[in-house]
Amino acid sequence: MSDVINFTEKLGKFSDLWSPRVIAEMNDYQFKLVKIRGEFVWHDHKDTDEVFVVIEGSMGIEMRDRTIYLTAGEMTVIPKGVEHRPFAREECQILLIEPQGLVNTGEAGGELQAENDVWV
Amino acid sequence: MSDVINFTEKLGKFSDLWSPRVIAEMNDYQFKLVKIRGEFVWHDHKDTDEVFVVIEGSMGIEMRDRTIYLTAGEMTVIPKGVEHRPFAREECQILLIEPQGLVNTGEAGGELQAENDVWV
Repeated sequence: MSDVINFTEKLGKFSDLWSPRVIAEMNDYQFKLVKIRGEFVWHDHKDTDEVFVVIEGSMGIEMRDRTIYLTAGEMTVIPKGVEHRPFAREECQILLIEPQGLVNTGEAGGELQAENDVWV
Repeated sequence: MSDVINFTEKLGKFSDLWSPRVIAEMNDYQFKLVKIRGEFVWHDHKDTDEVFVVIEGSMGIEMRDRTIYLTAGEMTVIPKGVEHRPFAREECQILLIEPQGLVNTGEAGGELQAENDVWV
């Protein structure tokens, strides 16, 4: 490790939506880039917080009691156990930070459940 | 938590160099913004990797066997135990991700050792 990782260069290497690509590991955490458009599924992560950093574009995260909106240069921490549903009207490019092995849909599953540990 | 954190807004709230400010926590990790200019001290972190994400500007990280250069939109992971010395010719604004309680100078100490767990 200790290589230089360029977000734009990595984002140029894939185009599919809702399919996180691992770009780095720090201890037992992974940094993943993902492109989103449309609505994800409601889900939570029982055992871990999850970080969203918006690299390009704008997105929202619906929670049961409110909705937050993020644009490039902003981040948020979704606490463990909090149900959430990410969405974006136009394509949005995000950096996720979360423990190794985390399933993107939590226990909700469905067709948007992505393969894990795919690097770019 | 799950508030929206804007890097530019947080960076506007302090001006001192080499003094990390915590902006978020994810499990037992912290996200810290720091402004740097000049050279830091040689140090390592025996027990943890450390992530640098450049938000604005350019910086370098000298290691014993090579030097890497990072600019806005780039990140790197310094593996645990690897001696490193960050530097920047002009002010550079960085996001650090590392475990709670990590001392910025490792065991090296000195006048650049910053107070820990200072939020902005």
